[in-house]
Amino acid sequence: MSNQKILMGHGAGGKLSHQLIQRIFVRHFSNKSLSVLNDASVIKTSAFTAFTTDSYVIDPIFFPGGDIGKLAVSGTVNDLLVSGAVPKYLSAGFIIEEGFLIDDLVKIVASMADEARKAGVEIITGDTKVVKKGQCDKIFINTAGIGDAIESESKLWKTPKLRAGDKVIVSGCLGDHAMAVLSARSSISFEREVLSDVAPLNKLILPLYTNFPGKISFMRDVTRGGLATVLNEICADSELGIELFENKIPVRCEVEGVCEIFGYDPLYLANEGKVVIIVESETAEAILEQIKSCEFGKKAEIVGEINKRAPGRVIMNSVIGGTRIVDMLAGEMLPRIC
Amino acid sequence: MSNQKILMGHGAGGKLSHQLIQRIFVRHFSNKSLSVLNDASVIKTSAFTAFTTDSYVIDPIFFPGGDIGKLAVSGTVNDLLVSGAVPKYLSAGFIIEEGFLIDDLVKIVASMADEARKAGVEIITGDTKVVKKGQCDKIFINTAGIGDAIESESKLWKTPKLRAGDKVIVSGCLGDHAMAVLSARSSISFEREVLSDVAPLNKLILPLYTNFPGKISFMRDVTRGGLATVLNEICADSELGIELFENKIPVRCEVEGVCEIFGYDPLYLANEGKVVIIVESETAEAILEQIKSCEFGKKAEIVGEINKRAPGRVIMNSVIGGTRIVDMLAGEMLPRIC
Repeated sequence: MSNQKILMGHGAGGKLSHQLIQRIFVRHFSNKSLSVLNDASVIKTSAFTAFTTDSYVIDPIFFPGGDIGKLAVSGTVNDLLVSGAVPKYLSAGFIIEEGFLIDDLVKIVASMADEARKAGVEIITGDTKVVKKGQCDKIFINTAGIGDAIESESKLWKTPKLRAGDKVIVSGCLGDHAMAVLSARSSISFEREVLSDVAPLNKLILPLYTNFPGKISFMRDVTRGGLATVLNEICADSELGIELFENKIPVRCEVEGVCEIFGYDPLYLANEGKVVIIVESETAEAILEQIKSCEFGKKAEIVGEINKRAPGRVIMNSVIGGTRIVDMLAGEMLPRIC
Repeated sequence: MSNQKILMGHGAGGKLSHQLIQRIFVRHFSNKSLSVLNDASVIKTSAFTAFTTDSYVIDPIFFPGGDIGKLAVSGTVNDLLVSGAVPKYLSAGFIIEEGFLIDDLVKIVASMADEARKAGVEIITGDTKVVKKGQCDKIFINTAGIGDAIESESKLWKTPKLRAGDKVIVSGCLGDHAMAVLSARSSISFEREVLSDVAPLNKLILPLYTNFPGKISFMRDVTRGGLATVLNEICADSELGIELFENKIPVRCEVEGVCEIFGYDPLYLANEGKVVIIVESETAEAILEQIKSCEFGKKAEIVGEINKRAPGRVIMNSVIGGTRIVDMLAGEMLPRIC
């Protein structure tokens, strides 16, 4: 199909749409539940289901360590995982700019299919719209996801139940995704290339639910807004606060270097394969060991704790001895990072 | 908030994103399952769940009879209904152009909330991305939907089970949505304004499942590509074909007039509140009466039947006595119609 381009007709619902669906989507997403002719897929579900959605508008669409397709699958899979669910099914909605290379679409769809296999999910329903050149930038993808909730609705952390003494674990180095995208956009080059951390975290997260029931107070993936924003959300309305130890926060030295030059703070940088987990103090080390045994958790650290020092705030004990308040991200950091 | 505009920071995941979520989305979509802090919502589900998605890129975003928000809710609700499910929950993913008026966003979100109430669904999870001016056209909305499947997966019409003699019912006048959008785009004016038929069809469709179990061979909403495309999809691989009677096909005279002037064929025009239903011959009249008793089905007609005259094809008996083949939509009709 080399050099063939997306035409307006590919989104019109007629013959060209059908060809696109059959030749690209059905071919790559093939599974028994995929709805082709029907408007919805019907699947067996458990008593409690988790439901989530994200739209992906990342620029560039191909970057070191991944692409928009890989991101669209693993981002939504991770949202289900941190919500206490086993990811099962995804939808995929494409908005494509007229003139987009069909070869690039095939690459993205193949990448989605590959990532779905790794994450144990099936892409079972979808939609494609085409807009005229200049009405969107290349391609935007929405994925919604459903998963079997492991605990019933009531038991889930609708509002975080923080306990004084709880430890804060971060599953790995911060900022890799942001740096990978930044390097793809600009002329920044690293001695060793920094790859995006984008990955589905099933193998890291699911064993924690099995092995440490009741020991996890809260879990969230650390994406847009970075660790600082997530932690502020967690303790915003609490009588407890979060105290961080700067020397414990894992950041790759290449990333740290770029942050120093450009004035970025790794605490606000986006990640796509990292989680923050608030855990009961006594089991914190055991949970950390479990996380470190996973491919995506090797650099995990206990980076802070929950206490009463600054209720509702996040404070940082810096390496040089001072203490500062870490606020939520104000304004924007890097646009179109996910 | 008059004249206030969407900034890049509204999509960055930090403070501005939180304000937007609290002041607009939470305020309008308020329900007990809505996930605010969490990445996913957890809800109770039945044994079989229908899952669907659609992205909406309609231009203009406000048109006679509706707006992109109303469309995004009722379009996805209807996809669940025709798939044999009771619609329950929706997700909402927004991609917004920097500089978009916040007042317009509020109007759209209020319209979505209103439509969700009418359709008996809750919008429980969402996402907002903002892209720079010129990187998308105003606003795109994706909704995914889940519903309780009325019949088990195996009983649903994964491949249409056509029977010779089955009747083809269309639930109302064709082309209203396309004409309403066309009139909003251009200088075409109607003596009586044609409103889009966009509406959630719960009250039309659900009683059919209850009152006529086993009598419905197939059901689909008639959207992009029009009736011609849906019917071609239905019989494509069948040993049976579909015969239509032109004098039975309901089209408003205003719509017919514009079609004659501009060379449009109502069979290919988009609708957003119409379904085509293939039903057992003996109960066809009873089903038609039931449909006509509903607000959105007053103009319903039996427009054709399934037979062996032209296997795998759709043929039309025209008002002037001839017969012609009605093919699937080739190329594009009206771009960004939904």
